[in-house]
Amino acid sequence: MSGYQVDEATPEEIEAERTTYAPIADATRRLADLSIRTRVSPEDAAIAHEHLEAAIALLGKDVDAEPYGVRYSRSGVTRAWGNAVVGIRNPIAPPLTIVSDEDGVSAEFELSAAYEGPPSLVHGGVSALVLDQLLGEAAAAAGKPGMTGTLTMRYRRGTPLGALRGEAHVDRIEGIKTYVVGHIADAEGVCVEAEGVFILPRWARADESAPTKFE
Amino acid sequence: MSGYQVDEATPEEIEAERTTYAPIADATRRLADLSIRTRVSPEDAAIAHEHLEAAIALLGKDVDAEPYGVRYSRSGVTRAWGNAVVGIRNPIAPPLTIVSDEDGVSAEFELSAAYEGPPSLVHGGVSALVLDQLLGEAAAAAGKPGMTGTLTMRYRRGTPLGALRGEAHVDRIEGIKTYVVGHIADAEGVCVEAEGVFILPRWARADESAPTKFE
Repeated sequence: MSGYQVDEATPEEIEAERTTYAPIADATRRLADLSIRTRVSPEDAAIAHEHLEAAIALLGKDVDAEPYGVRYSRSGVTRAWGNAVVGIRNPIAPPLTIVSDEDGVSAEFELSAAYEGPPSLVHGGVSALVLDQLLGEAAAAAGKPGMTGTLTMRYRRGTPLGALRGEAHVDRIEGIKTYVVGHIADAEGVCVEAEGVFILPRWARADESAPTKFE
Repeated sequence: MSGYQVDEATPEEIEAERTTYAPIADATRRLADLSIRTRVSPEDAAIAHEHLEAAIALLGKDVDAEPYGVRYSRSGVTRAWGNAVVGIRNPIAPPLTIVSDEDGVSAEFELSAAYEGPPSLVHGGVSALVLDQLLGEAAAAAGKPGMTGTLTMRYRRGTPLGALRGEAHVDRIEGIKTYVVGHIADAEGVCVEAEGVFILPRWARADESAPTKFE
């Protein structure tokens, strides 16, 4: 059931999927944070663990054998709901809500203790994860969806955990290559910059009408 | 309680911390995967959600206000247990177990559906996340711990979800800059390569005996 697939989901079915499973992801995000920061007794931790195993048993009763993939519905909504950065069903994703306008794309987001590298700072690789997604969506928003060819990160200073803003825009397009730049900033300014080259996939070269927008 | 701190934890207390909280992180990792792939009924999902909220209430009874940081104990063990790649208390971390020898560092690991970007492939940014950690640990293992200055990723082909191997080693050292290279490979060979420049932090320039090893 994975891959770039078109499914028959109606808007009502998509909304039901969101209502049923997004709260599981939200709760699991809070658990990820608590798993790191909790100081409760072994007794409380053991009871909490029993609740988690009970939830695992219930959710494991019927499981798709494949990862989520990217699902296009005939009703027009595209679901990248398993995506590691924007997926609303993926607890590893903060998740980012990326908006686009004529200047490119941007996202306001918050990174908790689960994204830590050096003490109280965002892991350098998490910044790369977020920027890879932002840059890729900027390319897609400009009509040039692609796979990452190269990604270059420049860390200007430590990125603090907490409230952050990311931006990206297409710098130039050369044939099948789209050059995109972006950054992550806190209230004091830019912390980390990125440049990426995105390669237009073969299917998109043949069919310019292919879907490019991710939700 | 965050920062590069030395604590008074004994080996027994460290083992008790692991025994109490690592199972919570393990269970939350399985929940992250199920959150994406489950297809159970809204009724089962709702009961599972209640269990998660019960666990959240228990674990939330006593919580450290700060992120985990990196904890050095006088007994010699260093705990980067909140780290987004290697932290055994961090459900976002796969977590990687990184080993070092005279050739550099390496890790065998498995990436589930929660690390997906393009359908059935590892998110390009997740590869960057893993490689930033591997390259940084290769610098540290060579006696040159540092913050990432720049990181350059080259995506040679899609990296499939599943069993993977990462490697990194120091290429050269120039003053406070350590140049490190690495890659992630599947059974067919290298999927993605990285080059990083790591900058020796000020504290390590003054004190060469500072701890460099992360667990």
